[in-house]
Amino acid sequence: MNIIVYPGTFDPVTNGHLDLISRAAKIGMVYVAVPLKSDKAPLFSLEERLEMLHENTRQFPNVEVGTFEGLVVHYAQHLGARILLRGIRAVSDYEYELQMAMMNRKLAPEIETVFMLPGEAHSYLSSSLVRAVVRHGGSVAGLVPPAVEAALRKKLST
Amino acid sequence: MNIIVYPGTFDPVTNGHLDLISRAAKIGMVYVAVPLKSDKAPLFSLEERLEMLHENTRQFPNVEVGTFEGLVVHYAQHLGARILLRGIRAVSDYEYELQMAMMNRKLAPEIETVFMLPGEAHSYLSSSLVRAVVRHGGSVAGLVPPAVEAALRKKLST
Amino acid sequence: MNIIVYPGTFDPVTNGHLDLISRAAKIGMVYVAVPLKSDKAPLFSLEERLEMLHENTRQFPNVEVGTFEGLVVHYAQHLGARILLRGIRAVSDYEYELQMAMMNRKLAPEIETVFMLPGEAHSYLSSSLVRAVVRHGGSVAGLVPPAVEAALRKKLST
Amino acid sequence: MNIIVYPGTFDPVTNGHLDLISRAAKIGMVYVAVPLKSDKAPLFSLEERLEMLHENTRQFPNVEVGTFEGLVVHYAQHLGARILLRGIRAVSDYEYELQMAMMNRKLAPEIETVFMLPGEAHSYLSSSLVRAVVRHGGSVAGLVPPAVEAALRKKLST
Amino acid sequence: MNIIVYPGTFDPVTNGHLDLISRAAKIGMVYVAVPLKSDKAPLFSLEERLEMLHENTRQFPNVEVGTFEGLVVHYAQHLGARILLRGIRAVSDYEYELQMAMMNRKLAPEIETVFMLPGEAHSYLSSSLVRAVVRHGGSVAGLVPPAVEAALRKKLST
Amino acid sequence: MNIIVYPGTFDPVTNGHLDLISRAAKIGMVYVAVPLKSDKAPLFSLEERLEMLHENTRQFPNVEVGTFEGLVVHYAQHLGARILLRGIRAVSDYEYELQMAMMNRKLAPEIETVFMLPGEAHSYLSSSLVRAVVRHGGSVAGLVPPAVEAALRKKLST
Repeated sequence: MNIIVYPGTFDPVTNGHLDLISRAAKIGMVYVAVPLKSDKAPLFSLEERLEMLHENTRQFPNVEVGTFEGLVVHYAQHLGARILLRGIRAVSDYEYELQMAMMNRKLAPEIETVFMLPGEAHSYLSSSLVRAVVRHGGSVAGLVPPAVEAALRKKLST
Repeated sequence: MNIIVYPGTFDPVTNGHLDLISRAAKIGMVYVAVPLKSDKAPLFSLEERLEMLHENTRQFPNVEVGTFEGLVVHYAQHLGARILLRGIRAVSDYEYELQMAMMNRKLAPEIETVFMLPGEAHSYLSSSLVRAVVRHGGSVAGLVPPAVEAALRKKLST
Repeated sequence: MNIIVYPGTFDPVTNGHLDLISRAAKIGMVYVAVPLKSDKAPLFSLEERLEMLHENTRQFPNVEVGTFEGLVVHYAQHLGARILLRGIRAVSDYEYELQMAMMNRKLAPEIETVFMLPGEAHSYLSSSLVRAVVRHGGSVAGLVPPAVEAALRKKLST
Repeated sequence: MNIIVYPGTFDPVTNGHLDLISRAAKIGMVYVAVPLKSDKAPLFSLEERLEMLHENTRQFPNVEVGTFEGLVVHYAQHLGARILLRGIRAVSDYEYELQMAMMNRKLAPEIETVFMLPGEAHSYLSSSLVRAVVRHGGSVAGLVPPAVEAALRKKLST
Repeated sequence: MNIIVYPGTFDPVTNGHLDLISRAAKIGMVYVAVPLKSDKAPLFSLEERLEMLHENTRQFPNVEVGTFEGLVVHYAQHLGARILLRGIRAVSDYEYELQMAMMNRKLAPEIETVFMLPGEAHSYLSSSLVRAVVRHGGSVAGLVPPAVEAALRKKLST
Repeated sequence: MNIIVYPGTFDPVTNGHLDLISRAAKIGMVYVAVPLKSDKAPLFSLEERLEMLHENTRQFPNVEVGTFEGLVVHYAQHLGARILLRGIRAVSDYEYELQMAMMNRKLAPEIETVFMLPGEAHSYLSSSLVRAVVRHGGSVAGLVPPAVEAALRKKLST
């Protein structure tokens, strides 16, 4: 069975991420991979983000949540994974993702980056946009799981 | 008459913004809407930015300048506006704008985002580029109103 | 009230077009404008396309279906319209649309092109894709009105 | 093992296609799928294109070459495939591919389109560009297998 | 002095082309290069297009008009040119141009493709758009030289 | 001989930059131009970046390394340069570069921005990506000169 690594910060996980995970889980064993350190200070702590991921991927038998330090391709090699999964929504995403994919191929030629599309209802979703809406007092119901929306409201005290 | 909300930081207002406002004013009543709080610290204070907008939109009978807190769609609902106006120059703008428009439609389905093009002479203009040019000692004559250029020079003491 | 001209070949009209028409009809009086001559031979005759448009826009009080010869800006001037409406889905659309909008502004400076987004469920729809799917034996239920799907099947004898 | 359908006209097969096939063959069983009918008249007959594909994929144990009529998703369903593979080079490719992927998901929700990148040395390659170069007397050595270059020269009598 | 080859069909030459030629002529000796054969049947004959180019480049001392058969890089090699010039307006242009430039570098590594921007007033211009406007009865004054507009009107009998 | 100004931060210089410099040096006299002040704090000091550039451009007879304060077009005017050189890799680069080029033309109409492509093996390279890979413990051999890789490792103590 293919091993698929799906890396991200998930600050927080959205229904777009979960949609992609459910699609990938039909193709192989999915490791959702969160970096131990982030360039930008995340809103949610690593523990909070991992717990949200665990809560919301529990229903998929072949999805694991893990963490990694350093380069994601090294983590993929450690797991024996052949596939790095990335979701793409818009063209500007794709440009950056293509650059990353080419660099990752240079670093680990045996690992392929594959791109998949989230469901169209989630095509405009991003964690940063979700955070911004809640920060300004808007509702993100239907865009993130209810417990994540509650956590966002509590964290941003709106 | 249609009520049109045109949101932005306007730090400072450029001739590209004013060109778009003059075009929108032919179609409806335009509310230029400035958020009370910005993510990034603006160069000009809210008061300075509002005054520049007032000075330069005075000649249009159906343009108002206002401020809002929270989400722009809530402000638009409060005004009874049906239209959110955004100017688009380049493709990369458009990608981000499309994502915002989809999120705003989710938040307020009765409000439509419409996109219009600034005049071609202003297609490369942005407030940040104008600030950068003045900061490095260049002239922005013709790109912003004369009083705005003077304010930029004073603020950046070049 | 604003007069809005929405030009297109509508070969055939899709639910994406109808979604855009319903959004525009909230903002002004909409003239759906079909050119008398097309560069490419359409699948449906002008009469068939006009009838499909009439059938499916009947429920909107302020939508008219018309035809024009020559340049659409001349037709808009003849109607006293201030707004040319174009739907944009993807970035590649937008590039071409921007070029057309700039040319139309050169030809008729008093008319503004405004862009609106169809609903996300219709973001991937185009008349040519709909024709291709039916031609190859696929279902386009939900993508075009039922009578249009029937007409497509009859025309393409699938 | 995952079954992967990789559709295309392959007129003719290039080293970019073969690179992608070799990458996909590490992930699953690959069916290279050629439509029986093409919208545009191809340079090489169906037989010639199939033979070129057979010759050049013989070295991969888990690659099959097949043909299909109608929609590729129906062919994928017939094979029990879960994955449609598409190579993407440039952004403009991606736009069209995204539209196709969304339509294919509408037609067959259980099948996922995944995108992979050809090797960077092949990023500018396309069958039509290869045909154009040979037609104008240029060399495509290194861009297609030697037998394909010979066939191109013979067909285009250069 | 650098020798610059600027290839194109010029059907007909526009003020955007002439703007680019005048810019390139400040940098080197420019050969405007027209292919003897075109994929699509041009509106103007080769003779007509060459004459229009001669008429409108006469004022530049270091601009020559030439024709070539086969690949433009072979023509550039024959002239001892180091530079292929291409104008780029929009992003979609650029994608195609990039693909061509990479192929041309493969065919003739010693020749560099350089891209330049036409003046902003010409950023939306293309020969095909100019032909379409005249065909539908619009004015292209200011977009092409007066004699070219006259030739277009005569050819398209509008 | 043409004088070409190639501005950048070069934090650090990559093989992509050096590839572009070698291509430009075939066309004119190249001034690699580093701004004295940067918006973002660079990883390497100005002295370190200049030394790396000197070390790696020594083999080209017509390449100079210089610094400038303020606007790059003023520096180009001071040198009597006619050409500003920019490398473009991806579409998103190009958008920003186009905006800069139009502003620079407004500031100094006699100077042309020309775009060139780095070799395809360097198409995904950027200084920031190189820094990120080394920071996370990856190898950038082949992407930067050996001495630059050593300096990166020392600076980032990996």
